[in-house]
Amino acid sequence: MRLHELKTSAERRAVVEKESGAKLDAISRNSLPEDTRIENMVGATQVPLGIAGPVRVNGRDVLLPLATTEGALVASVSRGCRAITESGGCTAIVLKDAMTRAPVFRLPSAKEAVAFTAWVGSHFQEIKAAAEEGSSHLRLQAIRPWIVGRNAFLRFEATTGDAMGMNMLTIGCGKAVDYITAQTGADCVALSGNMCADKKPSALGLIEGRGKSVVVEAVLSAKTIKDVLKTTPERIVDVAYRKNLIGSALAGSHGFNAHAANIVAAMFIALGQDPAHVAEASQCFSLFEREGDGVHASVTMPDLPVGSVGGGTRLPTQREALAVLGAKTAREVAECVAAGVLAGEISLAGALSAGQLAKAHKELGR
Amino acid sequence: MRLHELKTSAERRAVVEKESGAKLDAISRNSLPEDTRIENMVGATQVPLGIAGPVRVNGRDVLLPLATTEGALVASVSRGCRAITESGGCTAIVLKDAMTRAPVFRLPSAKEAVAFTAWVGSHFQEIKAAAEEGSSHLRLQAIRPWIVGRNAFLRFEATTGDAMGMNMLTIGCGKAVDYITAQTGADCVALSGNMCADKKPSALGLIEGRGKSVVVEAVLSAKTIKDVLKTTPERIVDVAYRKNLIGSALAGSHGFNAHAANIVAAMFIALGQDPAHVAEASQCFSLFEREGDGVHASVTMPDLPVGSVGGGTRLPTQREALAVLGAKTAREVAECVAAGVLAGEISLAGALSAGQLAKAHKELGR
Amino acid sequence: MRLHELKTSAERRAVVEKESGAKLDAISRNSLPEDTRIENMVGATQVPLGIAGPVRVNGRDVLLPLATTEGALVASVSRGCRAITESGGCTAIVLKDAMTRAPVFRLPSAKEAVAFTAWVGSHFQEIKAAAEEGSSHLRLQAIRPWIVGRNAFLRFEATTGDAMGMNMLTIGCGKAVDYITAQTGADCVALSGNMCADKKPSALGLIEGRGKSVVVEAVLSAKTIKDVLKTTPERIVDVAYRKNLIGSALAGSHGFNAHAANIVAAMFIALGQDPAHVAEASQCFSLFEREGDGVHASVTMPDLPVGSVGGGTRLPTQREALAVLGAKTAREVAECVAAGVLAGEISLAGALSAGQLAKAHKELGR
Amino acid sequence: MRLHELKTSAERRAVVEKESGAKLDAISRNSLPEDTRIENMVGATQVPLGIAGPVRVNGRDVLLPLATTEGALVASVSRGCRAITESGGCTAIVLKDAMTRAPVFRLPSAKEAVAFTAWVGSHFQEIKAAAEEGSSHLRLQAIRPWIVGRNAFLRFEATTGDAMGMNMLTIGCGKAVDYITAQTGADCVALSGNMCADKKPSALGLIEGRGKSVVVEAVLSAKTIKDVLKTTPERIVDVAYRKNLIGSALAGSHGFNAHAANIVAAMFIALGQDPAHVAEASQCFSLFEREGDGVHASVTMPDLPVGSVGGGTRLPTQREALAVLGAKTAREVAECVAAGVLAGEISLAGALSAGQLAKAHKELGR
Repeated sequence: MRLHELKTSAERRAVVEKESGAKLDAISRNSLPEDTRIENMVGATQVPLGIAGPVRVNGRDVLLPLATTEGALVASVSRGCRAITESGGCTAIVLKDAMTRAPVFRLPSAKEAVAFTAWVGSHFQEIKAAAEEGSSHLRLQAIRPWIVGRNAFLRFEATTGDAMGMNMLTIGCGKAVDYITAQTGADCVALSGNMCADKKPSALGLIEGRGKSVVVEAVLSAKTIKDVLKTTPERIVDVAYRKNLIGSALAGSHGFNAHAANIVAAMFIALGQDPAHVAEASQCFSLFEREGDGVHASVTMPDLPVGSVGGGTRLPTQREALAVLGAKTAREVAECVAAGVLAGEISLAGALSAGQLAKAHKELGR
Repeated sequence: MRLHELKTSAERRAVVEKESGAKLDAISRNSLPEDTRIENMVGATQVPLGIAGPVRVNGRDVLLPLATTEGALVASVSRGCRAITESGGCTAIVLKDAMTRAPVFRLPSAKEAVAFTAWVGSHFQEIKAAAEEGSSHLRLQAIRPWIVGRNAFLRFEATTGDAMGMNMLTIGCGKAVDYITAQTGADCVALSGNMCADKKPSALGLIEGRGKSVVVEAVLSAKTIKDVLKTTPERIVDVAYRKNLIGSALAGSHGFNAHAANIVAAMFIALGQDPAHVAEASQCFSLFEREGDGVHASVTMPDLPVGSVGGGTRLPTQREALAVLGAKTAREVAECVAAGVLAGEISLAGALSAGQLAKAHKELGR
Repeated sequence: MRLHELKTSAERRAVVEKESGAKLDAISRNSLPEDTRIENMVGATQVPLGIAGPVRVNGRDVLLPLATTEGALVASVSRGCRAITESGGCTAIVLKDAMTRAPVFRLPSAKEAVAFTAWVGSHFQEIKAAAEEGSSHLRLQAIRPWIVGRNAFLRFEATTGDAMGMNMLTIGCGKAVDYITAQTGADCVALSGNMCADKKPSALGLIEGRGKSVVVEAVLSAKTIKDVLKTTPERIVDVAYRKNLIGSALAGSHGFNAHAANIVAAMFIALGQDPAHVAEASQCFSLFEREGDGVHASVTMPDLPVGSVGGGTRLPTQREALAVLGAKTAREVAECVAAGVLAGEISLAGALSAGQLAKAHKELGR
Repeated sequence: MRLHELKTSAERRAVVEKESGAKLDAISRNSLPEDTRIENMVGATQVPLGIAGPVRVNGRDVLLPLATTEGALVASVSRGCRAITESGGCTAIVLKDAMTRAPVFRLPSAKEAVAFTAWVGSHFQEIKAAAEEGSSHLRLQAIRPWIVGRNAFLRFEATTGDAMGMNMLTIGCGKAVDYITAQTGADCVALSGNMCADKKPSALGLIEGRGKSVVVEAVLSAKTIKDVLKTTPERIVDVAYRKNLIGSALAGSHGFNAHAANIVAAMFIALGQDPAHVAEASQCFSLFEREGDGVHASVTMPDLPVGSVGGGTRLPTQREALAVLGAKTAREVAECVAAGVLAGEISLAGALSAGQLAKAHKELGR
């Protein structure tokens, strides 16, 4: 069987059905153009799409598309949206914006690795020119070097317009590496040396940020906490303290939150973002602190790689979901995802503190 | 707008279209039954589905469904599948099987927390009975206690049949907690205290495992490495050493691999698994070591929560993809996902060592 | 120069003085017996010894010997001791007691690694007998296996009487490995494979514990906090929350405390413990929570390797300091060290919340 | 008992002897001046001092003072020194030099935290002037801000001459904070917010460095490995790979080495450095890679806080040991400590690969 030699999805489906004995009826029903650039395409996976919200983000009321197979998730996020919006909405701020790629070089010695990174530092402009050549959006901001023994890691940081930018930067980084190796003779072992760190949880991502670094906050009144979340300020703060901070600390986790990955995954799939980035994007801090008679709730996401153009955002259903979201730029997408996570965190912290988690799963889940 | 009060997806779509100005045409075309239990459902997100493989896993030739928006991924995994299969296939072994949920309790003092965990230890059978009551699949295996100050975390470990089991265990754990609090008066702060650790990267998941813990291995000959991967054993081993181990170590990452999250995310979406679990499942070790004239390649995934029934596996396209995979049990799903990750790791390590990463992105990606 | 061929410290000093041009007068003045088993001994380093306390631990008033070169440390710990003792003392509990050593084996394949660990599991009694042979104190409790690719790590857990036990267990583990390799032919790559994890910070040590796992607690009244610490319950709780939890979480640290390492290092040196263990023992949780009108303060140290006999406890000054401490067993040493850390944490949290840190350094430090 | 009201060590000893029943004879015999600024001083702890080496570091033959109670350590380091020196010596390079202190501020909102850090960024010169005022050595290099929710962490990076500099920077940071709070009204919760991160293991220290960041390397020939270490290049590289990298990765450890903490602790005590810093300084990478017929060995220590003046370096025995070492500057101290760690790592990797660990402990240890 040579799937990749076949021209159409229908032909490939016929082969797969024959080989596996499976029927691909539902998979065949889709709105994807035949020239979708996924190899060996046989159709589409359909993920149920629910709409949570609206939630007020920086003064705008936003509907949040969530593609998920988990019952109760959309309802939960919606409840959080209501708590936020009743409290006057949330404020989301992009703190930093830099996609990264980090090749690793092996030098003959640590001494030469030091000289190599010094050379890179003093040739930043030439390297930048090589990286950006031919791209209208890539803007290299910095190259940060690390040395471990005789290995040198160079972390390229760049803005990439409104694209998430991983591919754009990989291509630019490849050109930069060609330039560097031609000039220095250094051996580039791999174009990605895991100091990116792409699609992996890492303390580096938490500390240095990657993609968009975002903070979002809302102040919930005691009344909202009682009416919408059925719990008290004391209780919700206590849950966040013991679960998000102490529990995660003991687990050696970089995820100091309740269930950020749920919202990140659902919004990433709905909006055509790369769901493999859930590994890093779900690393975030959810804090709940007493404020007046209520609670100051915040989510800090240092490592949120998103875009409003390119990649999966061009696909039909994803494009429609982006239109529902109404985000025009990558930064707005980041702010909306962070707002969705805040809503999800508020709702789950509320549910846990009200003892409703098992009940919710029982009634709404399967 | 009250989406949750509307009965049909069509009605909800009409409201969302009106509110947002977006058109939901593609989203409306789907095979989902109207009673799909996702709240505020307006249709489906369609994710392109490609088929990689076949790859020989434990003697069986398997086609791998990958739902992805990333060009080059299916081709890359297919190349790895070919390298594996030409080498006689891979062996995948489930090392451990235990879903977990860990409530956190606040006791008046550390001294009482110690007494509390001792009580739990000596009442395991009663607690087990309470947890399993009404479930035909849940089997509680152990409760592991941790104490931090006056907080007690109880980590419930259970088998859950062929379901991934998070909901099943959450419900059972809720009953167990009801029993425990009724007997001891202890205050359960949250049914999940993040020592689960569910949908979060964590050293705990790496060390203790969660869901299925799987190891998969293959021995690639020098000829296969040359013919299929266009590189050499020395080079591929060097890439894995400097990238997967040194680079990830420096990044403070728990992901000692090249791009496991890509394959995990694509197979999870295709097969109806929970993509939020990418956060933990992508934590794995990809090792490449010299063996004879070739390379011993392995992937060890301690934290792979998957099922062959329940949750998203009931949806039409996902059920079809599971039929393509041909996995009958949760363990077989785990073995196939691990084999897919091994294929992806082999292919990317090969591409990086052959300097092809940027080129691949340029030609196949967007 | 062949220092190791010389018989006496005086002869070695003469050579070192000649070679380096240094004078070793102060180093020559010591109480060490000439047969002290340190190679190339030329004398002793003298570390100033201060006494903090008394602090009431489990009903007993204890003086804490601290060997330190840091001005303000003894005064600070003493202040914390006073706060604890005025509050009725602290309660310290040993939660777990197990020294560990973890050899790593390379098997031909992951499949054989699985069979190997299964063999180990079914031959525990024989392996235990081999490990304990010839030792009157070593008691092997468990062997926990891990598999990464074709590597098998076996973590030996043992009690070692009142010795810290690392050497005792290393010797026993060596015998066990001889038995295992003779029976199975497995290749032991290294007797320590870093899953011990000895003298390294690790999430493993935090999660699984090593040596003594101890929790210690005290309840401080608002009056004591005001009189002794010159701050308020609100303020001290806030410092611990933002510094010990959020700050350490962001730093990717396993040290969720203020300065535990200071007290651990000073007490370890004074009491003849191994100061290299500061790397792991200083990983601990310091929690401050509101309780009544005051504060519940606790320190949880999962990884505290100490002994009351063996190693450095036999040296003259160290033996005298142990007599001052009055701890008869390794467990009591652990409880007293934990109490010292609690005192230090209370005092520093108080000083920080009262804005006194820079002032203290200025007046007492250098 | 009021130890701190007594004037002399002798008086304090009398009280401690009476209270505890212990005799402080050995403790009383010391060379410490009576005005040593340690509170409640009763004398000195004597730690056996052995001399390892010489080891050739950057062309100079260096004797390494090690204060330790662990038998076999000095012999082991000496063996490593011999392997290094026979191979032509090692090269040590200081990559970075910056002591750090990081206060944490609580702002009313995340939005205001963003404005606050922007204000700090645009007033660097004024803050620098405030910090350096009155100090002849402190030079503030940068202030790096982080935001988590409404908390702002400011990480002050500074050079501190040849002092380790923690106290100097704490005092300067205190002045800077006074200036900042006076100008902005921001609430400084704690002068240290654990993003320093002082005396704690942290990914931050590994990634960003602290104190001196040092790399040291040597190339060992096959002959030296055979003659001195009694093993082979293949075997020693294999030990380092499976133990230092895979084992530590699985353990969730930041210590990718064999026993760096042993050498760090022993040299820190001997040389008057702060042994509490073992918690962070022992985080390092020990790599062994094939090179020609032998091995390229390196140790990379990103987080090594040392000084040649100030603190414990002023004490009599410590000053003498510094003279033995012959290091004139803080940087040279760092290079020598790193060289000592390299020697220790080479020796232990050799011993493990030759199966000698248990044997060494049996014969030389207690």
